[in-house]
Amino acid sequence: MAKDDFLNALGTMLGPKGLTRDADALAPWLTDWRGRYHGAALAMAMPSTTEEVAATVRLCAEHRVPIVPQGGNTSMVGGAVPDATGSALILSLRRTNRVRRLDPDAGAAVVEAGVILSDLHDAARARGVRFPLSLGAKGSATIGGLCSTNAGGTQVLRFGTMRSLVLGLEAILPDGSVLDSLAPLKKDNRGPDLKQLLIGAEGTLGVITAATLQLVPEPEETATAWIGMDSPQSALALLRRLERAGFAVESFESVPADSLRLVLRHIPGTRPPLDSAPPWNALVEVTGARGLRDQVEAALADALDQGLASDGVLAGNQAQAAAFWRIRDSISEAERASGPAVQHDISVPVSAMPDFMLSAAAEVERAFPGTSASAFGHLGDGNVHFHVRAPAGADPGRWLGEQGKAVSAFVYDHVVAVGGSISAEHGIGQMKLDTFARLTDPARLNALRALKAAFDPLGIMNPGKLVPSLASDATAP
Amino acid sequence: MAKDDFLNALGTMLGPKGLTRDADALAPWLTDWRGRYHGAALAMAMPSTTEEVAATVRLCAEHRVPIVPQGGNTSMVGGAVPDATGSALILSLRRTNRVRRLDPDAGAAVVEAGVILSDLHDAARARGVRFPLSLGAKGSATIGGLCSTNAGGTQVLRFGTMRSLVLGLEAILPDGSVLDSLAPLKKDNRGPDLKQLLIGAEGTLGVITAATLQLVPEPEETATAWIGMDSPQSALALLRRLERAGFAVESFESVPADSLRLVLRHIPGTRPPLDSAPPWNALVEVTGARGLRDQVEAALADALDQGLASDGVLAGNQAQAAAFWRIRDSISEAERASGPAVQHDISVPVSAMPDFMLSAAAEVERAFPGTSASAFGHLGDGNVHFHVRAPAGADPGRWLGEQGKAVSAFVYDHVVAVGGSISAEHGIGQMKLDTFARLTDPARLNALRALKAAFDPLGIMNPGKLVPSLASDATAP
Repeated sequence: MAKDDFLNALGTMLGPKGLTRDADALAPWLTDWRGRYHGAALAMAMPSTTEEVAATVRLCAEHRVPIVPQGGNTSMVGGAVPDATGSALILSLRRTNRVRRLDPDAGAAVVEAGVILSDLHDAARARGVRFPLSLGAKGSATIGGLCSTNAGGTQVLRFGTMRSLVLGLEAILPDGSVLDSLAPLKKDNRGPDLKQLLIGAEGTLGVITAATLQLVPEPEETATAWIGMDSPQSALALLRRLERAGFAVESFESVPADSLRLVLRHIPGTRPPLDSAPPWNALVEVTGARGLRDQVEAALADALDQGLASDGVLAGNQAQAAAFWRIRDSISEAERASGPAVQHDISVPVSAMPDFMLSAAAEVERAFPGTSASAFGHLGDGNVHFHVRAPAGADPGRWLGEQGKAVSAFVYDHVVAVGGSISAEHGIGQMKLDTFARLTDPARLNALRALKAAFDPLGIMNPGKLVPSLASDATAP
Repeated sequence: MAKDDFLNALGTMLGPKGLTRDADALAPWLTDWRGRYHGAALAMAMPSTTEEVAATVRLCAEHRVPIVPQGGNTSMVGGAVPDATGSALILSLRRTNRVRRLDPDAGAAVVEAGVILSDLHDAARARGVRFPLSLGAKGSATIGGLCSTNAGGTQVLRFGTMRSLVLGLEAILPDGSVLDSLAPLKKDNRGPDLKQLLIGAEGTLGVITAATLQLVPEPEETATAWIGMDSPQSALALLRRLERAGFAVESFESVPADSLRLVLRHIPGTRPPLDSAPPWNALVEVTGARGLRDQVEAALADALDQGLASDGVLAGNQAQAAAFWRIRDSISEAERASGPAVQHDISVPVSAMPDFMLSAAAEVERAFPGTSASAFGHLGDGNVHFHVRAPAGADPGRWLGEQGKAVSAFVYDHVVAVGGSISAEHGIGQMKLDTFARLTDPARLNALRALKAAFDPLGIMNPGKLVPSLASDATAP
């Protein structure tokens, strides 16, 4: 059988550690971590070098075997789960996990795809520098997956997404050739930047095997503050003021009063950061040289004087800063505990975000009586998590089934109307494929399809993800 | 005749101001500004709106008429000059020249392709902000051309090239469809960043019609210093120290003693900035809040104490700062005045640059006895202008003819050996096409060709530029 020929050749090439068909070994990698998507696979390849990855891709191309690249399998949109046919090979990059080089002076590290984010954090810290991107899944998410999904996190405001932190890239193209663009060139005008094609392509145009990543110095001092204010407009004005004053603002997260209330109710051990209960809050983190905390304190006093803030407290120590962050990081969990909600990861231009947060929430609540909508998160990036909670007393499963799609369609239509994106952080994967097809202008969809056809004419790279098929159903939200 | 049909249709569409076949009107646009490339054209279209550009491209696609997009025609590599056949239409973007919106609070401007760089500088300054990219051709270069060639300049160190300053883009794809990606989204994970494909593509994948560009606040204070040191290694160490101390270093240009000597000899009115004559110099510009000059003065004193610098002076006023910049900006002119030289615009990883500057110069001088080689420019970007001057007394034309190609091939081979780029700033155009083909790995060339075939299957977009044909001659330097 052709399939056996393929698997035998692959097994010979990769050795016993490099290939498995064992059902127990495969099981954790056939489902996403939230348990929403389930698939099947021919086998799982676990090459440990770039050459082995290239040879695997070549063999797949030869045998027309679909490839599902996988890192930590932490996708929020089913981007790393194979389809149910069982015809695909899972290509796990987890064994390509060396930090090839880490140069604190040059501010760069060459890191293989399978390196786990928190391991890179540790390796950098041990050399007195840091990799300035972090997110909840840091203990599982890998560099290859973070690049392929253009991950963001809580420091995008200052350092950008992966797209700006990737100085160089090594990838296997769908024909098995190696695109070596690892040299960190700040200026290189040999045509368009090809590595940008692979970043955010969710494994549909090739397999990332290594990246040269930017490292930055550890800050001398960090100031973390919880600030109360009357509106998201005031929050954005405060952010602009801090930036203009020259502060290196790394995080600026907005938290509405109702989200804070849910956290305090459902998450054990949390306490209100302020004595007052302002309508809006901002969790702000600033880094700088020694003496920073005094400067931030003075800036906050100014903001209070001028009415941009109504209340505020600077964390007195790391434990208090961690307590502030725990509130922010527990909002989704608290909302889940309080009842069903439809969640959206969306972005609009930063300057349009404060108005959007208020008007979109009001309009959703008007269109779907009894719901309550709220937006929280990365205000400074123009990216919030927009959640719509079911009416009190509604049956969770039934409400989601009956109203979920309509609510999402309503929200996404509003996002697109102000030039926003239906996926700010999480990507398209399989979850948002139909919405993407419905709400994307034809020129953009055609360009993406042309790109896919040009790089992957056989259609073997992570099929069914990101790129809507021409026949794609346009009825979903 | 088909050609007449095309021109009649185009003329009707664009009106008398929008199309010319007049030889005198066409002449300046058929030759590059250095007079190295000459071409011919069917006519020059001058649409004034995005819709007119789109209609022009559609008509060209229908009639298979090649398009040469043109802004200020300031290419250094013949990128905007049509070929000699006269079959192409020059598509001038110079009449699409509105600043559609300029929002100082949001730090963004939506600018049409034909806006001249210095006009954008003025418009921003009038609103209390600045567009932080500048270069010698600012009085002619247009936003569309700057995007299409991913222009750099003297502030890349802090703000990056156009690639990082473009927040949004509007472009006409080769089928005439409009890719509208103008909304400035800081986070958008709907697949790879398509606008990055157009940036640096030199008009081979589409025509840029407008861009949303980042604006930054005007600095309160600027400090400009001329610093002497013993080596490029010391220069880079000094730069790293300034950056670590938190200074916003916008420019860090290195000037070797021999380049300075040529300027002082050939450029009237220039004076040595220092009393000493150190082997290397750095022109450094730092911006910041009031009090910056005192801080920079203290940092320079430290650098002198610790041997990173041997001498240094902080400009006392704008005139003195301008005099320092005049030296830097006159190096090419001074070299031309002193005799023939082969020039190279190259980049290597920043950390490799100091060694490269010394070793590559020494090796060229050894391989081509009598020549003198020197590198100057954007040290902090890993990008220098590497010039090889003819032996004293050599006949200029003859030496260039006999040795020019061999010298360039030698230099480019060294650049590629350390992972560098044969074009840091100027692009490929028609000038570097053969070198690009010779020195680029097949995976990268194939990817570029696949991209070209996918987006421009008819091959009408700026043919003969950037993308080496499969039959391209691999003998040139």
